[in-house]
Amino acid sequence: MAKEIERKFLVANDDWRAFVTSATPMRQAYVVLMHDRSVRVRTKNGTTAQLTVKIGQNSLVRDEFEYPIALDDAEEMIALAVGNVIEKVRYTVEHHGFVWEIDVYEGAYQGLVIAEVELREESDAPSLPHWIGREVTGDRRYSNQALATEKLQQDVLYGLPN
Amino acid sequence: MAKEIERKFLVANDDWRAFVTSATPMRQAYVVLMHDRSVRVRTKNGTTAQLTVKIGQNSLVRDEFEYPIALDDAEEMIALAVGNVIEKVRYTVEHHGFVWEIDVYEGAYQGLVIAEVELREESDAPSLPHWIGREVTGDRRYSNQALATEKLQQDVLYGLPN
Repeated sequence: MAKEIERKFLVANDDWRAFVTSATPMRQAYVVLMHDRSVRVRTKNGTTAQLTVKIGQNSLVRDEFEYPIALDDAEEMIALAVGNVIEKVRYTVEHHGFVWEIDVYEGAYQGLVIAEVELREESDAPSLPHWIGREVTGDRRYSNQALATEKLQQDVLYGLPN
Repeated sequence: MAKEIERKFLVANDDWRAFVTSATPMRQAYVVLMHDRSVRVRTKNGTTAQLTVKIGQNSLVRDEFEYPIALDDAEEMIALAVGNVIEKVRYTVEHHGFVWEIDVYEGAYQGLVIAEVELREESDAPSLPHWIGREVTGDRRYSNQALATEKLQQDVLYGLPN
């Protein structure tokens, strides 16, 4: 079991694209979903897949268990999913010792771009790249659960304040 | 992905004990639970563990995906489970070409004994051993979900009719 500690931001501009070290197309969906826990299936590059159990209400720290699974299983579970199937490309960028993941959404959420940085401990204070926008850590509109289960949210797409 | 097709019965007496071919102590609990799907963790013999995703409302046939996981992960997920932890010993008995699993519950459900037979197809008609009692296939009081999440049910324990 791993503790997942991450901060999440909108992105102010495209300057991050000059620093990309990897790009991974992903499809993901929830197999089971409760208010404080979920099981998600995700495929990467259309070639590998994983099943992830996340437990915990704290948006900054959650228990996470992850297992590789067969691609066929993943596709079958995606077809039986709860809510929307999310398609996005995940880019990585390194900045002052931290790896940033920039998710560029496709499909219904085309136009949405979210950057996440994984922390080693809650007290970590990563230097914020200049292309980072408003922090949305803990804003449930930007949670994968909300994106997967709620109707298209215009305020999410256009980054409007509350 | 496997299709799980099974019939479930109460047990009329202890005569099955003479034919036991294996006995496996199990602990299990639900990690996530919705009305038509669940993710369950189970340990066997205190040495191995598996994570099982079941999807589908039909009590006779369900989609089932099962993965071996580390025992430590299983114990951590059991500690974070939804509802009760179920402890039981699963015995197997072969009868006219079908394997019967007899679950003898411990803890809160001590006294409850349920026999299940897995079918290859829905039309299979296994010969019923003489020690088999009332069929409870589809009776949700005897589902693992009900046992895991509801208060002790006296009607389940003592096999009362509706």
